[in-house]
Amino acid sequence: MIRNDKTEENINKIRYDTAIQLAQREVEDILSKSPIIIRKYTNHLTSSQGKYIRAKSLLLSAEDKLGFIHPNAITMASAIEILHLATLVHDDVIDDAKLRRGMITLQKKYDKKTAVICGDYLLCAALKMAASISDKQDYHSMNLPDYMSKICLGELNQHINNGNINLTIFQYMKIISGKTAALFEASFYAGAYFAGNDQIQQKTYRKIGYLLGMIFQLTDDCIDFESSEEEALKPVQSDYEQGVITLPLIHTFDQRKDLKERAFNNQLARDEINQAVHTSGGLVFAKMVVQRYYKKAQRLIQTLDETDEKKGKLIAMLDKVSRITR
Amino acid sequence: MIRNDKTEENINKIRYDTAIQLAQREVEDILSKSPIIIRKYTNHLTSSQGKYIRAKSLLLSAEDKLGFIHPNAITMASAIEILHLATLVHDDVIDDAKLRRGMITLQKKYDKKTAVICGDYLLCAALKMAASISDKQDYHSMNLPDYMSKICLGELNQHINNGNINLTIFQYMKIISGKTAALFEASFYAGAYFAGNDQIQQKTYRKIGYLLGMIFQLTDDCIDFESSEEEALKPVQSDYEQGVITLPLIHTFDQRKDLKERAFNNQLARDEINQAVHTSGGLVFAKMVVQRYYKKAQRLIQTLDETDEKKGKLIAMLDKVSRITR
Repeated sequence: MIRNDKTEENINKIRYDTAIQLAQREVEDILSKSPIIIRKYTNHLTSSQGKYIRAKSLLLSAEDKLGFIHPNAITMASAIEILHLATLVHDDVIDDAKLRRGMITLQKKYDKKTAVICGDYLLCAALKMAASISDKQDYHSMNLPDYMSKICLGELNQHINNGNINLTIFQYMKIISGKTAALFEASFYAGAYFAGNDQIQQKTYRKIGYLLGMIFQLTDDCIDFESSEEEALKPVQSDYEQGVITLPLIHTFDQRKDLKERAFNNQLARDEINQAVHTSGGLVFAKMVVQRYYKKAQRLIQTLDETDEKKGKLIAMLDKVSRITR
Repeated sequence: MIRNDKTEENINKIRYDTAIQLAQREVEDILSKSPIIIRKYTNHLTSSQGKYIRAKSLLLSAEDKLGFIHPNAITMASAIEILHLATLVHDDVIDDAKLRRGMITLQKKYDKKTAVICGDYLLCAALKMAASISDKQDYHSMNLPDYMSKICLGELNQHINNGNINLTIFQYMKIISGKTAALFEASFYAGAYFAGNDQIQQKTYRKIGYLLGMIFQLTDDCIDFESSEEEALKPVQSDYEQGVITLPLIHTFDQRKDLKERAFNNQLARDEINQAVHTSGGLVFAKMVVQRYYKKAQRLIQTLDETDEKKGKLIAMLDKVSRITR
């Protein structure tokens, strides 16, 4: 369905930079103007806000041919960031994480119970926000609860496979396609929809979003082995200790059966793991996978019926998420 | 807005008994046909299903003048039951509960992490279901995420006040109006809406739902002091041990400052508490409050522009939820 009606509606000629600011303000409002009883906790989250990469993905995709962004796209971008925040709050409960974005986590500062309820509240706030957009058809086309279900299933899948050193590459890819890529897919899809693209082009945007999400997660997995805590603003070299087996390690175990056996018997120290992913080619392999996804996404962006300027911005976004692995 | 269009749509002439069965089947389908990875957990929940009191409230309210129920009401009733189930799963994590509806809880049988994710999944499934109803306006008028937010705030409020022996009656009423009454209000409201009532009558239904929810919770609080575990199919005489201060106890503490002081110093045994709520009039007081809510709800039901038959059914529902306190 081509959304020609958007042209008439475009009374607010909002450009990308303004749109991002408005989305950030909407998110901050949700957090800082929440009901008194929960404000202490949501305020704590305000101080540790992320990079708004999902909102930026959505709003960039939402630029129409004239470079304008529909107000509904801004609301959806804010909703997706709040939804993401909700999953982080619950993630931290599940992983017993102490730090997030350089700040103490909600579950650590208060308790797990508070964090479960706050996550629920944010989840509802996000879905409420998405449902509030003026053109109801827009909301239903996105089907945000459906994407949210996918994220839950990805997280459950990861949890079930916690400590599973026999995890295959295929299983791992399935986990992250739910856990991370689903929300990127939703963001690009929503953006393409609000920009008035036809269904074929919407589908291409979805694919690009999916690939970008996979790259984002794989890059994050590499950071865990490569970066210092100061650089990453969160605990690093911690995935393995928490039982989270990621691609660099799966490949390392495939190459080094001796290490795998010792991991199975709990005889493997963190230092050995970190050294092995470097020396056995685990990190190189993960980066090769990123490179393949990158090229695929790049090709898809080139096929889009968009201006060279917009394509350039999409490539820049792609470069950004894959920054350390290129 | 009067929903006259419903008359034309009423091609499926569904009556209450069939509607309940269909709603139950929809809920069972969500649980038993969930994605493989989560099915083990959702199947566990199938075996401990509740009394469908919220779905029954909705469907009874949804009966139109001819006694028929619109299919959308059935979907909304199923969504509300799934939503309720999601809150129970998270509740059990928060309360560290071992039994629910006579069955071992998900968080006890598996672990808290699994239960957090399953609760999230069910929450999304419920909102997805509600958003799937054919007339989108119906979904948006209900604003289910908003009611869900109210429930979260009620739960948070209860958690914050865990072990607070200075909890006032007013604070307590506020907690349960969110935690329990909100979803009953939503059920009656949705029912009235689907039956094609005007906004004034919808408002009366909402009030009735709210009162019924309050009665339901207060009755539950009394059961905790009065019933045996076999009767209640869940742990009883446990609220106080879990730090949950309910109305019978608040009144008892008001009457018996000596007990309150000993509770403050952790010197109060469970037996003493149970005896005191009986002897000091705490239970009698809670039942008086129930009685007042009951009469108010009864009066409101009588003002409805409904057949005597439907009014009779609503009174029967009211009798059911307040059964042990009358």
